[in-house]
Amino acid sequence: MTRPGLPQGTRDFGAETVHKREFIFHTIRTVFELYGYEPLETPALENLETLLGKYGEEGDKLLFKILNNGLDHSSKKDSALAEFEKILEGKNNRQITERALRYDLTIPFARYVAMHHKEISFPFKRYQIQPVWRADRPQKGRYREFYQCDADVVGSQSLLNEVELTQIYLEVFQRLGMDVELRINHRKILAALANACGGSSQLISITTAIDKLDKVGPDKVIQELKEKNFTASQISIVKQYLGIQGSNQEKLEQLASILHAGMVSGFNNKITGTNLPAQNDSSLLEGIRDTRYLLDFFPNSNNLVLDLSLARGLNYYTGIIFEIGARNMEIGSIGGGGRYDDLTGLFGVPNIPGVGISFGVDRIFDVMEELKLFPDSLHHAAEFLFFNLGPESLAKTFELIQSLHKAGVRCELFPDQSKFDKQFKYAEKKRIPYVVIIGSEELKTGTAKIKNLSTGVQEECEFEEVVRYALRVNR
Amino acid sequence: MTRPGLPQGTRDFGAETVHKREFIFHTIRTVFELYGYEPLETPALENLETLLGKYGEEGDKLLFKILNNGLDHSSKKDSALAEFEKILEGKNNRQITERALRYDLTIPFARYVAMHHKEISFPFKRYQIQPVWRADRPQKGRYREFYQCDADVVGSQSLLNEVELTQIYLEVFQRLGMDVELRINHRKILAALANACGGSSQLISITTAIDKLDKVGPDKVIQELKEKNFTASQISIVKQYLGIQGSNQEKLEQLASILHAGMVSGFNNKITGTNLPAQNDSSLLEGIRDTRYLLDFFPNSNNLVLDLSLARGLNYYTGIIFEIGARNMEIGSIGGGGRYDDLTGLFGVPNIPGVGISFGVDRIFDVMEELKLFPDSLHHAAEFLFFNLGPESLAKTFELIQSLHKAGVRCELFPDQSKFDKQFKYAEKKRIPYVVIIGSEELKTGTAKIKNLSTGVQEECEFEEVVRYALRVNR
Repeated sequence: MTRPGLPQGTRDFGAETVHKREFIFHTIRTVFELYGYEPLETPALENLETLLGKYGEEGDKLLFKILNNGLDHSSKKDSALAEFEKILEGKNNRQITERALRYDLTIPFARYVAMHHKEISFPFKRYQIQPVWRADRPQKGRYREFYQCDADVVGSQSLLNEVELTQIYLEVFQRLGMDVELRINHRKILAALANACGGSSQLISITTAIDKLDKVGPDKVIQELKEKNFTASQISIVKQYLGIQGSNQEKLEQLASILHAGMVSGFNNKITGTNLPAQNDSSLLEGIRDTRYLLDFFPNSNNLVLDLSLARGLNYYTGIIFEIGARNMEIGSIGGGGRYDDLTGLFGVPNIPGVGISFGVDRIFDVMEELKLFPDSLHHAAEFLFFNLGPESLAKTFELIQSLHKAGVRCELFPDQSKFDKQFKYAEKKRIPYVVIIGSEELKTGTAKIKNLSTGVQEECEFEEVVRYALRVNR
Repeated sequence: MTRPGLPQGTRDFGAETVHKREFIFHTIRTVFELYGYEPLETPALENLETLLGKYGEEGDKLLFKILNNGLDHSSKKDSALAEFEKILEGKNNRQITERALRYDLTIPFARYVAMHHKEISFPFKRYQIQPVWRADRPQKGRYREFYQCDADVVGSQSLLNEVELTQIYLEVFQRLGMDVELRINHRKILAALANACGGSSQLISITTAIDKLDKVGPDKVIQELKEKNFTASQISIVKQYLGIQGSNQEKLEQLASILHAGMVSGFNNKITGTNLPAQNDSSLLEGIRDTRYLLDFFPNSNNLVLDLSLARGLNYYTGIIFEIGARNMEIGSIGGGGRYDDLTGLFGVPNIPGVGISFGVDRIFDVMEELKLFPDSLHHAAEFLFFNLGPESLAKTFELIQSLHKAGVRCELFPDQSKFDKQFKYAEKKRIPYVVIIGSEELKTGTAKIKNLSTGVQEECEFEEVVRYALRVNR
């Protein structure tokens, strides 16, 4: 006998949860399609070489690798053992494993685009809603199997794509009834900060430190920079940078003058509209210009916040970056994304830039559950349970069920001729709102008894009227 | 650089295929819910011990096993090597792998029922639509990742469940527009045949042989039985059994008399309605009674065929068994199922009988594609492409797009200010039926140009009328 259990970090989803999750998926899918994004599905298994090295050293360790089948059990044993030794030393070898489970949707998408770039008509707008697997240590809100919902457009450098993806974020969460804060930053603004603090080599140190601002507060961020040997004047620039407050517009203006003080000459002139001097930090200018361009499309939205401490990973993104959080609940990011310069270069197809966003469905689910945002109408069980009172009334019962099915009404027959009590309990437990009783007496009068289980009211309904009755009370 | 490629036996699905597959899933899901079945989803990963030994020796070999993460790379190397050696010898060991990918939906369902049998209200009707993975040798129509769509009802022995599942099969394929043959048999009829041929120990030999009838013809079946040392009189019974022809009703009658000749005394009397003698093959009687009960619910269906050679595996099923095939295309089974006595006994929870059916979506897809059965309306790309003619007209264009989105019309803006030609080609390739042109001239007149790409007709439409126009022409 096998003791039944689930692998750590995985979950079963019963009917109610499936319907609620499907509500989220359906909302996201509908909005994606409204904006012209088309679906793609890729297999759960990818070649190991497709995935290895794409998520950093830590990511490589978190891949679920598939043991090769058909390992030769005899002749090659010695060499297989040697190969296995290599695996244990971290060198994954094709003889043991050459496939792994999808870790995200971006690399499979990149692999797909690289394979099909000659047939694809660019810009290519795809969405993808599938599970991914990571061998992370499971904890509250973090699972080893979870869904991602991504939309990306590749083959276009237009900022209108960022505008569109922003609209998609806002539209989806409006439809879900969630109040969100969409934080925006630009990798080039971060690059400019690094330049102002001693050059681009500082970028990773700075972004790593300020990315933690939300969690650890400004003092710890500064402390980390001190430990990394930032000078007092460099730290002063970071302090000023992090101290920037006000509306998005005010932040952009302060940003210019602060970084100007550090290294950019004449930058402020650009911001205030005068001519651009020769020496300027073009990175900062582009960052501010793009960000302003995007924000200007949403003059009345209170959901968009320029968050200068937002960094989102280190190497991948090159332009505007997004992160989205729920306003009425502490749960961390429920989505994110950004622009990248080169999606498919890793697969030998260079110069395909793009921008994408992702929805974290598992956390969105948790927020909606906690804040009771799911509509009541998601229950999909049968609307009517026909009691089973034995063979005598079965023909009539079947006939009625078939006409209800034809009319699109969900209904079912209790399969066993059990006691009334048991059949009632079944309906209650399954939250079936109406039971229909047809016994010998009802057969004689040509009338079914229909009981509304929530009100307890029982009505009589002529057989010919049952469909109409059902359509009338059907939600 | 990584050469982009897919693991053997796996597939990417582009937009058109996703929509067509979703059409099949949606149809099946809708019918399942119409009959009161509720969804369940289980994780892709199961504990290896949940799966091992459930699919026979061959099945164990076809499991995709997951390499454990966090294998200790130093201290335990020696013992890990020893463990690996055990794996190579076929003894799967937890130190190397303790998880595998789902191989079907039945065992995970059984595992779920065993874990939750105390909360579940029986009869429990669940459906499940998820991918499964098998390390089978890939070939035409056989993939390593493919979807199953299962509906099972457990905790009820009523034959009305078989009736309902038959209705579901017929309803789904009617909605899909596929002409199918639903073949039915009963494991107890096969058991009776075995009894007539020397006892129940012959069951596996006989079913293995006659299951191939379709593929190899009757002569080869008989030859196989000879090789298995069946006697001439036993083979004569099998020959007569396989020679049974006629309507379902006629087959049932012949069946009785043939097996009667072999061993059942007085059996025929039961069939013709007279009293049951003391000695009878109760297995055969039950098989015939159940089968007739089911068939009698569908007196006018020409889709149901009693196929006495149908066996469907060897050990799992105990009652009525189903197999379904397409009538207008040779592709093998597109679904199957049957009754089983004990779903969860393997997991220590005995006495939960049930019956289930499965749809083979990948083959159903192939049939519908081949016979051109998919509706034309499955295309979900945008209905309108707004040309990008530069910043001047962007505000008006955006405004119109937003009102179309609000009205639920799929439309998109070409993100780059490219040449007309490129924008036209994009619309054509993506099969977007209408393009909307708003340049400086159109801004002046307050009128958009809308071109129908299939007819080539271009109309002028006042800005305020665009939504109405779109709703009018929208499919």
